[in-house]
Amino acid sequence: MKNNLILHQLFENESSTYSYLVIDPDTNEALLIDPVIEMMERDLRLIKDLGVSLKFILDTHVHADHITGSGEIRKHTGAKIAMSSAYDMSCADLHLDDNQILMLGKHEIRAIHTPGHTSGCTSYQIGNWVFTGDALLIRGCGRTDFQEGSSEHLFHSVREKLFKLPDETIVYPAHDYKGFTHTTIGVEKRLNPRLRMENTKEQFIQIMSELKLAQPKKIVESVPANLLCGLPAPFPELASTENEGVSILSPEEAHKRLGQFRIIDVRGEDELNNELGHIPGARLETLGDPLSHFLQNAPKDEQFVFVCRSGKRSLEATKLAKSKGFKHSYNLEGGMIRWNELHYPTQIERGGS
Amino acid sequence: MKNNLILHQLFENESSTYSYLVIDPDTNEALLIDPVIEMMERDLRLIKDLGVSLKFILDTHVHADHITGSGEIRKHTGAKIAMSSAYDMSCADLHLDDNQILMLGKHEIRAIHTPGHTSGCTSYQIGNWVFTGDALLIRGCGRTDFQEGSSEHLFHSVREKLFKLPDETIVYPAHDYKGFTHTTIGVEKRLNPRLRMENTKEQFIQIMSELKLAQPKKIVESVPANLLCGLPAPFPELASTENEGVSILSPEEAHKRLGQFRIIDVRGEDELNNELGHIPGARLETLGDPLSHFLQNAPKDEQFVFVCRSGKRSLEATKLAKSKGFKHSYNLEGGMIRWNELHYPTQIERGGS
Repeated sequence: MKNNLILHQLFENESSTYSYLVIDPDTNEALLIDPVIEMMERDLRLIKDLGVSLKFILDTHVHADHITGSGEIRKHTGAKIAMSSAYDMSCADLHLDDNQILMLGKHEIRAIHTPGHTSGCTSYQIGNWVFTGDALLIRGCGRTDFQEGSSEHLFHSVREKLFKLPDETIVYPAHDYKGFTHTTIGVEKRLNPRLRMENTKEQFIQIMSELKLAQPKKIVESVPANLLCGLPAPFPELASTENEGVSILSPEEAHKRLGQFRIIDVRGEDELNNELGHIPGARLETLGDPLSHFLQNAPKDEQFVFVCRSGKRSLEATKLAKSKGFKHSYNLEGGMIRWNELHYPTQIERGGS
Repeated sequence: MKNNLILHQLFENESSTYSYLVIDPDTNEALLIDPVIEMMERDLRLIKDLGVSLKFILDTHVHADHITGSGEIRKHTGAKIAMSSAYDMSCADLHLDDNQILMLGKHEIRAIHTPGHTSGCTSYQIGNWVFTGDALLIRGCGRTDFQEGSSEHLFHSVREKLFKLPDETIVYPAHDYKGFTHTTIGVEKRLNPRLRMENTKEQFIQIMSELKLAQPKKIVESVPANLLCGLPAPFPELASTENEGVSILSPEEAHKRLGQFRIIDVRGEDELNNELGHIPGARLETLGDPLSHFLQNAPKDEQFVFVCRSGKRSLEATKLAKSKGFKHSYNLEGGMIRWNELHYPTQIERGGS
């Protein structure tokens, strides 16, 4: 069944990933499959340029080689993130069961659970197109040696589900490493060296067991991030006390948690490198116009610790930030004086600029 | 006008080039647009895998950033190479005038001369697709500062020819550097920062004059090679005499032309590093089985100069090569004896192997 949808295939070079923007020209609604976080600007720009309204973001699986753009793109578009119900992912809005249907205008998007590369891999069928993620690649398939992968499951997913689609179905994979852009079910049944119809399950399992692939370069950062839809992990809770509705952070706690927040030094420029020095990594935004201007442009969900000489000006700064909607704002108790008394690291930069 | 043709868009990573295989499913005939020589194996394999017969190879222009695969692919498929009649290229089979039509089955392929990036740039329109080469890129266009490029001509080509196509026409360019795969005439009329409808010719010419781009890395090798459809340059003519139907090369001429042919030394292995030495770069293929075996596997269009001690064995070698169909075979007159008398460079390798 052909459709009148418009398809934009989009390539990301570093992990050789394809993303797909599918547009219903009748309603101007769109869905985006497997966005990559580094390409978010490009994708948002394209959505804006084409004047479409993004309804769904579909991830075929929890990727191990790149971070998904789904969470960030949801923030900018209000689209709903859909993933397999086989993952227990609270960041997703929709948890799709096998054969569950989403509608884009009058067009059906069918989720097909195709586990094997990971336990929650899902393909999406739209008319005569199928977006297969890493379950079925052009003359290949995804590896099965991590993330609860299983060669047996993958064989079943491809042979009993994807290969049951009509031969003319066009296959759009999540990756290609040779510059191919698509294939068909019929061609892969005949020519896929791992999964073609003449191969047995035992042959497939043996092929997969002999691959001996290196770990994906980005797996350590990608998988945890993608389990959160590519969004930063929530802030670690800082132990603080309250004073006049302001959160006060002890220098001991701040020192222990260095790197988990941004330090804003609100003193004058001439104080930054005086005998007290400043905390390494601190950013100077003097209380007054500089700080106000800075807060106007900073993202509201950042975590800030304000610091001054003794903790008085930074208290004002923390109150100001809080009034502007920065929920994660802390005043560093005792300022640089106390910090120095505790012999915590400081920095003093001397000389010309 | 939509069509039932099948399109394979193919990407080459190093120069970010798109090639296109267009297939008529009714006749199984195909055409290939802008193949890249490094991807020849992939492209030939795809043609074979899909069981199609390649009828045409269309180059949109003489590329400056990669070498075309057209000449080599013609050798393997018998397809005809078509290029603009604005180039004077004897390696092409078809020299297409503006608006000239080629047929693929019942489908018309219309050549549209779109000079500006180079003087012979041609776009190809097939139904509601247009393959624009470097004339029109996604939100961009090709540079106009070499190969008889002209911003004025390019402006005219895009605005008066390509932008006169229906807005829904899908544009497939020769390159994209951000992972986009296609655009439409309507979108580019609105959003192309250089060529959109609201820009004047003067604005466009100014934009192009201010680009200050570096030379493409491969221009020095690509342009001469592409003027020969990507095939190696024909052999420089060597001044030789004939004897018993064999071409005889004087050592003076051979010395002058070193590097323009392969030297095959047909002596025994023990002679190669004797007091006469051998010519630097010579390959040992002793007259007899080694030489016969070598000639069985060598490409027939290579240029060989055979050498021995005095010129007698190499005469036999040259005769043998000629009888096997090697047309560019020469006997080095007087062999290594005469070469040494003339004090031309020799090499002697001593010691253990």
